[in-house]
Amino acid sequence: MRNRLRDVWTNRSAGINGWLAIPSPVTAEIVSQHEFDSITVDLQHGLVDYTSALPMLQAMGHSQATLMARVPWLEPGIIMKMLDAGALGIICPMINTPEQAAQFVGYCRYAPLGERSFGPTRAISVHGSDYASVANEQVIALAMVETRTALANVDAIVATPNLTGVYIGPSDLALSLGCVPKLDHDDPIVMEAIHTVLNSAHRAGLKAGIHCLTPAYAKAMIELGFDLVTTGSELRALSASLSHLLSTMRTP
Amino acid sequence: MRNRLRDVWTNRSAGINGWLAIPSPVTAEIVSQHEFDSITVDLQHGLVDYTSALPMLQAMGHSQATLMARVPWLEPGIIMKMLDAGALGIICPMINTPEQAAQFVGYCRYAPLGERSFGPTRAISVHGSDYASVANEQVIALAMVETRTALANVDAIVATPNLTGVYIGPSDLALSLGCVPKLDHDDPIVMEAIHTVLNSAHRAGLKAGIHCLTPAYAKAMIELGFDLVTTGSELRALSASLSHLLSTMRTP
Amino acid sequence: MRNRLRDVWTNRSAGINGWLAIPSPVTAEIVSQHEFDSITVDLQHGLVDYTSALPMLQAMGHSQATLMARVPWLEPGIIMKMLDAGALGIICPMINTPEQAAQFVGYCRYAPLGERSFGPTRAISVHGSDYASVANEQVIALAMVETRTALANVDAIVATPNLTGVYIGPSDLALSLGCVPKLDHDDPIVMEAIHTVLNSAHRAGLKAGIHCLTPAYAKAMIELGFDLVTTGSELRALSASLSHLLSTMRTP
Amino acid sequence: MRNRLRDVWTNRSAGINGWLAIPSPVTAEIVSQHEFDSITVDLQHGLVDYTSALPMLQAMGHSQATLMARVPWLEPGIIMKMLDAGALGIICPMINTPEQAAQFVGYCRYAPLGERSFGPTRAISVHGSDYASVANEQVIALAMVETRTALANVDAIVATPNLTGVYIGPSDLALSLGCVPKLDHDDPIVMEAIHTVLNSAHRAGLKAGIHCLTPAYAKAMIELGFDLVTTGSELRALSASLSHLLSTMRTP
Amino acid sequence: MRNRLRDVWTNRSAGINGWLAIPSPVTAEIVSQHEFDSITVDLQHGLVDYTSALPMLQAMGHSQATLMARVPWLEPGIIMKMLDAGALGIICPMINTPEQAAQFVGYCRYAPLGERSFGPTRAISVHGSDYASVANEQVIALAMVETRTALANVDAIVATPNLTGVYIGPSDLALSLGCVPKLDHDDPIVMEAIHTVLNSAHRAGLKAGIHCLTPAYAKAMIELGFDLVTTGSELRALSASLSHLLSTMRTP
Amino acid sequence: MRNRLRDVWTNRSAGINGWLAIPSPVTAEIVSQHEFDSITVDLQHGLVDYTSALPMLQAMGHSQATLMARVPWLEPGIIMKMLDAGALGIICPMINTPEQAAQFVGYCRYAPLGERSFGPTRAISVHGSDYASVANEQVIALAMVETRTALANVDAIVATPNLTGVYIGPSDLALSLGCVPKLDHDDPIVMEAIHTVLNSAHRAGLKAGIHCLTPAYAKAMIELGFDLVTTGSELRALSASLSHLLSTMRTP
Repeated sequence: MRNRLRDVWTNRSAGINGWLAIPSPVTAEIVSQHEFDSITVDLQHGLVDYTSALPMLQAMGHSQATLMARVPWLEPGIIMKMLDAGALGIICPMINTPEQAAQFVGYCRYAPLGERSFGPTRAISVHGSDYASVANEQVIALAMVETRTALANVDAIVATPNLTGVYIGPSDLALSLGCVPKLDHDDPIVMEAIHTVLNSAHRAGLKAGIHCLTPAYAKAMIELGFDLVTTGSELRALSASLSHLLSTMRTP
Repeated sequence: MRNRLRDVWTNRSAGINGWLAIPSPVTAEIVSQHEFDSITVDLQHGLVDYTSALPMLQAMGHSQATLMARVPWLEPGIIMKMLDAGALGIICPMINTPEQAAQFVGYCRYAPLGERSFGPTRAISVHGSDYASVANEQVIALAMVETRTALANVDAIVATPNLTGVYIGPSDLALSLGCVPKLDHDDPIVMEAIHTVLNSAHRAGLKAGIHCLTPAYAKAMIELGFDLVTTGSELRALSASLSHLLSTMRTP
Repeated sequence: MRNRLRDVWTNRSAGINGWLAIPSPVTAEIVSQHEFDSITVDLQHGLVDYTSALPMLQAMGHSQATLMARVPWLEPGIIMKMLDAGALGIICPMINTPEQAAQFVGYCRYAPLGERSFGPTRAISVHGSDYASVANEQVIALAMVETRTALANVDAIVATPNLTGVYIGPSDLALSLGCVPKLDHDDPIVMEAIHTVLNSAHRAGLKAGIHCLTPAYAKAMIELGFDLVTTGSELRALSASLSHLLSTMRTP
Repeated sequence: MRNRLRDVWTNRSAGINGWLAIPSPVTAEIVSQHEFDSITVDLQHGLVDYTSALPMLQAMGHSQATLMARVPWLEPGIIMKMLDAGALGIICPMINTPEQAAQFVGYCRYAPLGERSFGPTRAISVHGSDYASVANEQVIALAMVETRTALANVDAIVATPNLTGVYIGPSDLALSLGCVPKLDHDDPIVMEAIHTVLNSAHRAGLKAGIHCLTPAYAKAMIELGFDLVTTGSELRALSASLSHLLSTMRTP
Repeated sequence: MRNRLRDVWTNRSAGINGWLAIPSPVTAEIVSQHEFDSITVDLQHGLVDYTSALPMLQAMGHSQATLMARVPWLEPGIIMKMLDAGALGIICPMINTPEQAAQFVGYCRYAPLGERSFGPTRAISVHGSDYASVANEQVIALAMVETRTALANVDAIVATPNLTGVYIGPSDLALSLGCVPKLDHDDPIVMEAIHTVLNSAHRAGLKAGIHCLTPAYAKAMIELGFDLVTTGSELRALSASLSHLLSTMRTP
Repeated sequence: MRNRLRDVWTNRSAGINGWLAIPSPVTAEIVSQHEFDSITVDLQHGLVDYTSALPMLQAMGHSQATLMARVPWLEPGIIMKMLDAGALGIICPMINTPEQAAQFVGYCRYAPLGERSFGPTRAISVHGSDYASVANEQVIALAMVETRTALANVDAIVATPNLTGVYIGPSDLALSLGCVPKLDHDDPIVMEAIHTVLNSAHRAGLKAGIHCLTPAYAKAMIELGFDLVTTGSELRALSASLSHLLSTMRTP
């Protein structure tokens, strides 16, 4: 089974993650034609749910990138459906306690490590007949640390067995800390929290990812030690591109 | 941000609510071309889920009505997805206890009032760049009071901070009280319960809505003091219209 | 093979035809739960094309009504696709000459009567294994007579072998005759044209249908001798029903 | 209301269940043209969710088979949505305790037996106007017993009032017992567990079903006393058929 | 009826046209939130057909831009369907002769100017009840001049009554003239042809548009006198934006 | 650009062609996971049109097979759309004359060989940036010879420059010759016609394909010299498999 993001990590590099908020296999395919290390279908804040996510995964079937999904919430039904559909990683929002982290990991792992139900309908056909035996070690489980409570519990969260890593949602984290909700934050309160999570994850031997907007900020986060950075969704890329185009056209 | 239903309430009037049970942007657009004060996409008993609800909201983008969603259950994933998709109100079924009411409100409000996750992908583009700062006061959260238990707890439910109001589901309420499940009820047991909920909500300074079928009953409920009435779904409107048409045609 | 519309005609009655302009299997199913003799999916002025028409036909699979399609134009691809999908009748717009009528009939009939290509993928599974042998006699082919030219050619059009009948589009006919385009016309010029077409069809032993709006007008057309009447689309039924409802609600 | 599976059981026979994993009304319709006693839309490991399940149910509207749904998890929203959409049975995965079994049954039954919310939008139109009064006795609720924990609790699970029966998922059960996850198991550990569940269900007067792959194994399970057997999904049937075809073609 | 592109022309300015190749109401809505004067849904080389175009038009219902469609070919069915769906303009490819131009105009105009069939199902609901009377003067009909033959016939083509203008497809024009097929051409042969078409259109009092890629070229074409310029599709905007992003990320 | 079917032909072998009649990317993906040399999406008698064909092509993006489309009719719009969407071959029904054959080839070839319009939106992204320069030689154009008229004209048809080959539709051919319409025919009249077409094609240096049902017949056709055989659609494969399964289950 190929898993480009794990290969990147094996090479001690940071992965660059594409982000899909538009519910369309056409835009997914376009994104997958670019050299991302992983691509995440966002079923939480993206305008995507299972019905649209499935053909998006199919349209990216030729891609070398590791395909992942961010799910709407810590709900077992959709987590397992996305894995069965072939996602090799799950980013789960709002993991605030070690109990929630353990539940999340359980939904991603087959017995005896967890309680994921067996029936990898599409996964086995695209990842190979040994899927059942390697899924537990290949599937990436990233818990979002994005609240004050999660920050307080971060050392316990990263101690969860079989968790792959954490993923920081800076907007929610900022909001929870009383700051403005935005990406690419530079408020010292938020920055300190980001450092805390990063260090906690690395001390535990886990990976750390963060949601960014601009390439400059994302590169700074890689410098800081993050193992996975996202540089905005394809929706923002499109909108920014159109704004720039019209601004050029409307300027005499 | 425009919010016609809140404007109606500011004018001490009752809102007339359209109801969408058919999963189609075409029927949604037709409904939105009529002068409802609010229109609710029904993801519970309607044949609609997120995949169909999104283009329905888009097709109603020109409408002046406040667009809301009834969700299938007290489940955070879908509540937040509908808000991110641009719904300005959520009607949540089966709120039976103050704890459930508090959970529901929490899913609809950003920190520090609640735990709604930040990422209003479509909402910010259709409601304006100040969405983040006004969402907590603009989003309408209506808890359905529709069981014997909820009736017993109604004073505690309406005491929930940041809850906008209650919405009565007469069929379930009747069933729970041992009566026939139907709309436009006139059984004294059901009517007494309806009065109890209405008075409790108003005493707490909250709004009260009720699901009706015929205009006559809906107007009576407005007379009674309700702030929001629904007069059947577009599915019933279509079916009734066809029955009448064929009955006319088949009568010599 | 059941064919309710032909049964109605055998009984020397007029068929009442439902009309589908909304691209949704849910609205199609609702219409099919009412007692129409035939139901026509409108791929011309309706908001429907093949992609939406197929699940609409499926959703009406339980219905006793004869299912037909109005196609966008005299184009062989879509005519044959709708027949293969299980439609038992085709209404074809803008048949202005006997040559066009012959082409149309050819697209609806297997050799040696015509040039319909063989491959009734869904038709054979829903209409039975003898479909191939009875299709030529069962499939209803109705040519729309709706222009001044068609009116001049009507006797030649109805002489087309294996044509089932004509169907009048009063809006286009009126427009072509210099009148206001509308249904349920009473302008003497249009009425005379309607009589001409009706009489021409009946003299040739063919059926005659007409597109109407109100039940009153449709019943008058049956009185006049028409064999098939349509009483507006489900889209108009829904819109009219909502207008009436809101008018009642808004009237003090 | 027709309910073929209950009729089969009344005749002391075993039902043969079709299984839908492909999200398509076309494949659903094809399956429904074969003589299954019941057909289950799989929203758990199948590639189906509500959006695709609804037109699948519609496309099978003509079928005599009892239509059921396997839901992704013990989540009330989707269970009730599938029942409102017309499913006459629910198979719920991972029922490990009597508490979970009671919750599950509660989601399937109207008050006073449970807490299913009233609003059978499509169910009432396809099953008849007496749906409300007969739904509690007609709807089939099958709890999946598929873990070591469930096995330990099986006698308590089958004691749940108004539960119709249990359904064994051999892959998960095997995995949980430390065996290879697969269908048509013959490992003595798994076989003993299967016997235990079957006997427990029958002692309690409940039905017992099991997920199988080959007809031979399924027939053996009927011999063993099972009341319901599934013989693989339509997805496996298609894939196996293509493998056989190409193997024949590629063999000189 | 609002028609921003005609307003722009009345003000003797050039319109900036957005171009939709992705079959998604979400991307269409994003494009429509930017200040284009017109937006064209491309059903020819775009990955769009009627099924996807309809919700795209709906999702842009709030937009001030004039919404148009490029159709796959000079085929009456789809031209009229797009107009009925609410498009206010049609760009038709490969108009090589005055006869083809006359056919095209005929498909866009009601009698007595043409043979467009009457039934503006959605158009009347979004453009107002006077649609029937103003459609002939409001609908924009642009004939693509993009072959050597069309170039030779251009003076006859622009003499077609009720044609609004021409639209140059530089790739096909270049290919037909023996040059490389690309946008933003600077080959003297192509440039001369572009001048010829522009001058011919303006001499006849018609509008002239051209398909461009970069803003710089598009602005140069406005300088040259073009009345309408397109600056690449949203698909190219997205892809270019992602290429730039990844190039920045991958550069140390 | 990879083109497995042309590679097979270069190796003087016959290609085995899969056939898609079900409008689903899931079934398309399943078929593409088997070792067909080419796979054809059937937009004529299959239940597929452009909207469903696009995600089907995307879902097969990983496949080594040459992906082709059978179009509904000799209509330029859909032929060019399927090529732009990435199909590398077109099978066109009902080519009865050399004029029709020339038109067909023209729609598949860029100038100067034909009149295909330039804009390979998806094709260029999946087949590589040199698509424009190699498309004319790579795209496979197969004319269906399936009527008495076509049989009479076959030598003229195969003389069409840049035509790749012919493809026999035995059902239509049989029907046109007065025989029963079916596949795997053995009627001497039909067999003689098949030989005639095969020999004519090979004499002209073209390829010859034929639509078959069973592997046995398909292998016999390869023996006879055919370069391409289809062995029934995935829809028939599924249906046959289910029939066999139920027959086994129902047999005591």
